[in-house]
Amino acid sequence: QIAAVVADFFADFFARQTAQQQAWLGKKLLITAGPTFEDLDPVRFIGNRSSGKMGFALAAAAAQQGAEVILITGPVNLATPPGVTRIDVRSAQQMLAQVQAHYSGVDVMIGAAAVADFRMAQPAAHKIKKQANQDELMLTLIKNPDIIAWVAQQVDKPYLVGFAAETEAVADYARHKRVQKGLDMICANQVGAGLGFEVSDNALLVITANGEYPLPTQSKQALARELLAQLHTELAKIEASDQ
Amino acid sequence: QIAAVVADFFADFFARQTAQQQAWLGKKLLITAGPTFEDLDPVRFIGNRSSGKMGFALAAAAAQQGAEVILITGPVNLATPPGVTRIDVRSAQQMLAQVQAHYSGVDVMIGAAAVADFRMAQPAAHKIKKQANQDELMLTLIKNPDIIAWVAQQVDKPYLVGFAAETEAVADYARHKRVQKGLDMICANQVGAGLGFEVSDNALLVITANGEYPLPTQSKQALARELLAQLHTELAKIEASDQ
Repeated sequence: QIAAVVADFFADFFARQTAQQQAWLGKKLLITAGPTFEDLDPVRFIGNRSSGKMGFALAAAAAQQGAEVILITGPVNLATPPGVTRIDVRSAQQMLAQVQAHYSGVDVMIGAAAVADFRMAQPAAHKIKKQANQDELMLTLIKNPDIIAWVAQQVDKPYLVGFAAETEAVADYARHKRVQKGLDMICANQVGAGLGFEVSDNALLVITANGEYPLPTQSKQALARELLAQLHTELAKIEASDQ
Repeated sequence: QIAAVVADFFADFFARQTAQQQAWLGKKLLITAGPTFEDLDPVRFIGNRSSGKMGFALAAAAAQQGAEVILITGPVNLATPPGVTRIDVRSAQQMLAQVQAHYSGVDVMIGAAAVADFRMAQPAAHKIKKQANQDELMLTLIKNPDIIAWVAQQVDKPYLVGFAAETEAVADYARHKRVQKGLDMICANQVGAGLGFEVSDNALLVITANGEYPLPTQSKQALARELLAQLHTELAKIEASDQ
């Protein structure tokens, strides 16, 4: 009898595994991850605390479930997940160029990268020297391209998923950002208090036109699987309404 | 590259076998390494390309040769060398505080960290938001403390070794910097063309009041041993002239 229970458990387990494994078969995902670094001169740059873990976890889970995954990542210290095509970039402009080269024909684009909002208008060719009598340094930064908003404006745009990482009022800001940028889904991400950047655990509030779905605090790996499941449900709704 | 690794391994192995192992016995070294990150807000920072490899190689070699080593490091992805006491910091101000707490009673201080020259006067408590109509961002930075120059002004200052990493006119700049900051030795470090930051190989021009000693391009591990040997010679000269 125990043998039967165990056999049932494994039959069920492998059935779920297989179903999950096939869930994204035939789909193509484009995922951006990590920070971008904006050079001030040959040695200095403006960076941000994004570790890339969330984007890499999404890429790993999607590839595991059968998707074709292109991962465009800023500077991170993470191994490429099995079966994922990885493209490394440094700046927002480089990331935009790679997204422009790869977004076409993609079913879903997930913008998990923390793209720098601003960059130096003209990075210095040589190291900026400190003068002995200089007490202040003024940097004038200009706006970077908005990568996901650019994709949202294309006629052949994929289903678009963005992230909103904020230290305050994150849900309100995310609802507004989703509509304003023309995203299909946004994942609101409270930063700080052991969540968000540079840590392994995270919690998300997933927001679409159809509703809001809180995903509780858990490892980024587990969160990636839950987010993909939610994303799969949303795509199924769209496909059903298209028929 | 495998040949270089094997060569390093044997150089390392034989270094352990010889009397060189005892060369730094009874000496105390304070080494700073890596970049400092200066926060603009809770997610953004100004960083630099220092990997920390040179400082860590010096700490490893000195500990291997019997020294007591305190290593104060900015954010890096490097393992602590065996026998080294490591203290992690993020900003220049944090690094200064740790140097102030540990410089006393030290025989040699090597400032291999690439300390940020400037920081935000007042980092924002919340993430700086981009406004839709905002095309520029002005950052006003103030000068950071000069850590090694602070140590040079103390009556109980150790033998002081600095680094000068420049993209141009590095030797001239280094000679000037050594005198101006009150350093005993400076290591001029040409950055770029496969040397310097973010790479494993490096070349140095060692400058003291007694002369200049070029150390040719080699792994940072080998370079660390050569630099320590030169440093040992300089200390012996001073001890001889004191008697």
